[in-house]
Amino acid sequence: MAETIRVGIMGYGNLGKGVEASLSQMPDMQLAAVFTRRAPHTISIQTQTARVLHVDDAEEHAEQIDVMVLCGGSATDLPEQAPVYASMFNTVDSYDTHAKILDYHREVDKVARANGKTCAVGIGWDPGLFSMMRVVGEAVLPHGRDYTFWGRGVSQGHSDAIRRIKGVKDAVQYTVPVQTAVECVRSGQMPELKTREKHIRECYVVAEEGEDTERIAYEIRSMPNYFADYDTPISFITEDELIREHKAMPHGGFVIRCGQTGMSEMHRQVMEFALRLESNPEFTSSVMVAYARAVYRLNLQGEIGARTVLDIPLHLLSPRAPEELLKSML
Amino acid sequence: MAETIRVGIMGYGNLGKGVEASLSQMPDMQLAAVFTRRAPHTISIQTQTARVLHVDDAEEHAEQIDVMVLCGGSATDLPEQAPVYASMFNTVDSYDTHAKILDYHREVDKVARANGKTCAVGIGWDPGLFSMMRVVGEAVLPHGRDYTFWGRGVSQGHSDAIRRIKGVKDAVQYTVPVQTAVECVRSGQMPELKTREKHIRECYVVAEEGEDTERIAYEIRSMPNYFADYDTPISFITEDELIREHKAMPHGGFVIRCGQTGMSEMHRQVMEFALRLESNPEFTSSVMVAYARAVYRLNLQGEIGARTVLDIPLHLLSPRAPEELLKSML
Repeated sequence: MAETIRVGIMGYGNLGKGVEASLSQMPDMQLAAVFTRRAPHTISIQTQTARVLHVDDAEEHAEQIDVMVLCGGSATDLPEQAPVYASMFNTVDSYDTHAKILDYHREVDKVARANGKTCAVGIGWDPGLFSMMRVVGEAVLPHGRDYTFWGRGVSQGHSDAIRRIKGVKDAVQYTVPVQTAVECVRSGQMPELKTREKHIRECYVVAEEGEDTERIAYEIRSMPNYFADYDTPISFITEDELIREHKAMPHGGFVIRCGQTGMSEMHRQVMEFALRLESNPEFTSSVMVAYARAVYRLNLQGEIGARTVLDIPLHLLSPRAPEELLKSML
Repeated sequence: MAETIRVGIMGYGNLGKGVEASLSQMPDMQLAAVFTRRAPHTISIQTQTARVLHVDDAEEHAEQIDVMVLCGGSATDLPEQAPVYASMFNTVDSYDTHAKILDYHREVDKVARANGKTCAVGIGWDPGLFSMMRVVGEAVLPHGRDYTFWGRGVSQGHSDAIRRIKGVKDAVQYTVPVQTAVECVRSGQMPELKTREKHIRECYVVAEEGEDTERIAYEIRSMPNYFADYDTPISFITEDELIREHKAMPHGGFVIRCGQTGMSEMHRQVMEFALRLESNPEFTSSVMVAYARAVYRLNLQGEIGARTVLDIPLHLLSPRAPEELLKSML
């Protein structure tokens, strides 16, 4: 393609910085502007050619942005922002609240259609690439079962939940797959696994001076949904150690589909998709940027409305022409 | 969906039998007929409700077949059959001659368009699911490298090549990934690997009575393209042992994409898609049947012409409605 796709970043946290880094690797895309709720002059970005602007000025720059990547969180930012920006921009977001995805999708879809925009929702690795694998796995091996394991990696949501406990200064929670369960699944045995048998929740906690660590540990372990159903080893450490040892953001995980094929004689078939990531936000951002390319092309083709990874043909993710892909990748 | 998709099988070898088995697991699809070049009454199939018909009678049954799955080989069957049947049926095939795929695609596309048909070409796991992974991997992690390993599994092409040597009664060849190379790639190191460093070609050969096994081994090891670039351990065994130990058709393999993200500080990211298959033909067939569902739907939508795994949105593979997929799989 001759033209360069001009991308905007809405929100300059870990995800926004990851989008900037990913764009620097894409010859057919460029960062046009970063939009922030903070005072723009207080933000320094790494891309010389791009501007930092206030979110309130987004609409007046609509003509200069082909796709806006929304880098806010699913709890409060995206439900507010996505429908607003879908009226002005083609967008990509990483919305991940499974329970509310249908309503979210419907609302973004409505606004996007009314305004001739294309919006990819729920883009990243889970939801995202893992969702693709689950759908393909079930379609190809319907007599089977799938398993998703996450980790070893930091869960921001669980770390935040610990930080909200009285007397906790800081905390990091790692989700860790139980190795014996993983091996059992990989062998194609299709075990029935309880929540507790799949993952451990490893916690590193910095307590405020003079706080009762027994009480804090009890409050963590009894927190419903977050920890009560898991084995939860807790280590109290110093703030120095937390900063030194636990500030990286590795993550990963795998989706395994086990199934059986055959009529008289049955055969075990196992599909696995695995990620080992040194930086979770940078990988998520890289997936979002590839889908920004797809969203731009879909919009040019007149394909408007909300889309997920399940709707978008994969050749649209690649900078290469379809004929070239056919020749080199198939 | 209310209607049942009526599928035809063209050719009743391992792949055709696998399609029959896969269809038996699909509540929304049914086998309508098996077409064969042999005398139909000599073929016995496992599906009570389906008929066995001669290939010459295919055209007159066009109204009863929604999708024809072409189960012939890429060397001679498909180049002949695919353009012919694309004029009568929506089709799915597993064409896998990489060097000729562009011409093949173009020819099938032309016939399919002229006749209002939809034809999925190159469907299976490689080409097929592995191609999808290579395209997604490169799009998401452009600063990186991908590696495809095959095995441990039987290569029909290589086994056939050995059988053509004078004095060979039967043979089975296993492609085996070199474990040290796999580990090195998985760690994200992005090594440069020669052909010989990635796979071993393990051969089990039954020699005719009184033949010189040294000469046979020499001929195998010096065969260009097939064996000359590999380490090739050869075992001469009895016919009994070959039948007892080497008649299963396991296979598998993995595509690994290693890449780096970041701007100032770089992070290693590794994506892996792996298959461990007890039956290679049954798995390939299962992928083809899922794509038969997609082809049927695309045709109903008026999407005609040749398609590959890179063109077809993944939700079309699933029997579930898009809303349900969104809610349960994303």
